[in-house]
Amino acid sequence: MQRIIKNTDTMVEDMLSGFLKAHKEIVAGGSHSRVVKSVHMEPDKVGVVTGGGSGHKPAFIGYVGRNLCDAAAVGEIFSSPTAPAFLNAFEEADRGKGVACLYGNYSGDNMNVKMAVKMAKKLGIEVRTVVANDDVASAPKDQKEKRRGVAGEIFMWKIGGAKAAQGGNLDDVVQAAEKAVGRTRSIGIGLSPCTLPSVGHPNFKIEEGTMEVGIGHHGEPGIEVLPLEDAAQMAKRMTDIILPDYPFTAGDEVAVLVSGLGATPVMELYILYDEIVKELQQKGIRIYKSYVGNYFTSLEMTGATLSVMKLDDELKQLLDYPAESVGLKQF
Amino acid sequence: MQRIIKNTDTMVEDMLSGFLKAHKEIVAGGSHSRVVKSVHMEPDKVGVVTGGGSGHKPAFIGYVGRNLCDAAAVGEIFSSPTAPAFLNAFEEADRGKGVACLYGNYSGDNMNVKMAVKMAKKLGIEVRTVVANDDVASAPKDQKEKRRGVAGEIFMWKIGGAKAAQGGNLDDVVQAAEKAVGRTRSIGIGLSPCTLPSVGHPNFKIEEGTMEVGIGHHGEPGIEVLPLEDAAQMAKRMTDIILPDYPFTAGDEVAVLVSGLGATPVMELYILYDEIVKELQQKGIRIYKSYVGNYFTSLEMTGATLSVMKLDDELKQLLDYPAESVGLKQF
Repeated sequence: MQRIIKNTDTMVEDMLSGFLKAHKEIVAGGSHSRVVKSVHMEPDKVGVVTGGGSGHKPAFIGYVGRNLCDAAAVGEIFSSPTAPAFLNAFEEADRGKGVACLYGNYSGDNMNVKMAVKMAKKLGIEVRTVVANDDVASAPKDQKEKRRGVAGEIFMWKIGGAKAAQGGNLDDVVQAAEKAVGRTRSIGIGLSPCTLPSVGHPNFKIEEGTMEVGIGHHGEPGIEVLPLEDAAQMAKRMTDIILPDYPFTAGDEVAVLVSGLGATPVMELYILYDEIVKELQQKGIRIYKSYVGNYFTSLEMTGATLSVMKLDDELKQLLDYPAESVGLKQF
Repeated sequence: MQRIIKNTDTMVEDMLSGFLKAHKEIVAGGSHSRVVKSVHMEPDKVGVVTGGGSGHKPAFIGYVGRNLCDAAAVGEIFSSPTAPAFLNAFEEADRGKGVACLYGNYSGDNMNVKMAVKMAKKLGIEVRTVVANDDVASAPKDQKEKRRGVAGEIFMWKIGGAKAAQGGNLDDVVQAAEKAVGRTRSIGIGLSPCTLPSVGHPNFKIEEGTMEVGIGHHGEPGIEVLPLEDAAQMAKRMTDIILPDYPFTAGDEVAVLVSGLGATPVMELYILYDEIVKELQQKGIRIYKSYVGNYFTSLEMTGATLSVMKLDDELKQLLDYPAESVGLKQF
């Protein structure tokens, strides 16, 4: 395993130590060792919290910062943060106006957030949750509550974070984040697997010459394994899956996020994006704003995800609002 | 070859097409199809130009933007832009105050820039060049003119771009960029190779369990192949190579840039950075500002580069100046 590490047992601590030193102008450690908080948190606002497993850089801690998340709980690689970590993130983010916990739909996160919310209540901190379930490949549309959250979570943080920064109360922030999630659909295609450092070999396979459509952020099986397609075919396949699901239709204005899964050269993401633009244009869907890069990764998996969010005036204004975190900077 | 592409022959065009669509608020195409220019270029300033081969995202076009480079010439993968492309970049960037061309020391780039400078002179455009040679592994110290430019070029663009934005004349901009280059040293360690899409297999090997110290951005051979070390050993090795070269000594204030080579999970870069901080602290060298991420890559090579620039008051002020490009955003 060709990695730059010190010790597979302490990777998350070692990463956090470097992360906090590198970005002192944006983040600081919480009182719990697995919490990262913003150094710019304004008084008198709703707190915004997220959290999740490690190995998805810049998610999750890369979205802690000005007008985004105020704190994030950090888990082991591909595994949920603990309830005490979520609780401390709530405490760090709370300014007496309540906390919106915006996270992804995974059983470990659901369980730990739920426990942390109960503990927070005893401390007098009101926490409301919004659970992202943007991954259309992870369950049928009529079982949307079973769908996982993937890169579309970035839209949820951006929208919820902006709403809180603009003075929205807890209801407003939760509603805005729910609106973002409700109007976002994502799909991933995997081209090669990743390896959990503690295991030392990939725990799933993608054969050379094939691709896995609908793969999850931890290698969860997708919808189907197909012969590897070219970028134009992939763009058509991805849009054919997600556009009918919301549905997105002619005349809609959307935000588009194309994220690499970790080891795909960014050059290839632009090639894919170019084809996605063509597909959307053909369908009369207008792209208002795009994000292309490594926004939500899975260690060194290769492949890409596409997330599309349908906009309205409120979402456009919130999306355009400035933000400053390690993973997302907008003037 | 597990890639997201349409056609290996048109990868650069296809990438550029997507890049320009994704980032309309920052960049536009030049009149030459292989030129990217800033949409924010102020009148009445010195133009700043760069250029180089493709496959290094976000370099080079990701550093075109506000207070950075005004235009970049784009080459094929791992190969120099043509002289006409550099010439058009000069034309796009010229506002009658001359152009500083800040690029890396590679024979193809040297030749094409030289031709383009001559052609520009005939058009009445004064172009001065600064050639980055920050890679200490590529030639001995007494043959510094043979050294290649690597990720330290980002400091050159940041410093030169800020100087031009602040109203410096051509002399000022060239001097500032030369100062940045002169005070920067870089070293790379490669852990696995990359594949030129047109070739279809890696053109060099790094055996599992080994690492190549001093590897170049195109897989140029390094100083030595060693058994794979842990992050602490790598950090010591990298700093032991570059610190004595300038030399950096106790009391110095520096900027540090740790870049992944493309496919190394960003998590590992923070682990490496954490160890680099320890090495610098032990030597009494103070880190003023750090950049950790995928700033200058080599397709899907794994490994990392370390660049260190010695600061003074002028460089600190220029480094801190706001900037907005796809690859570098500072408030």
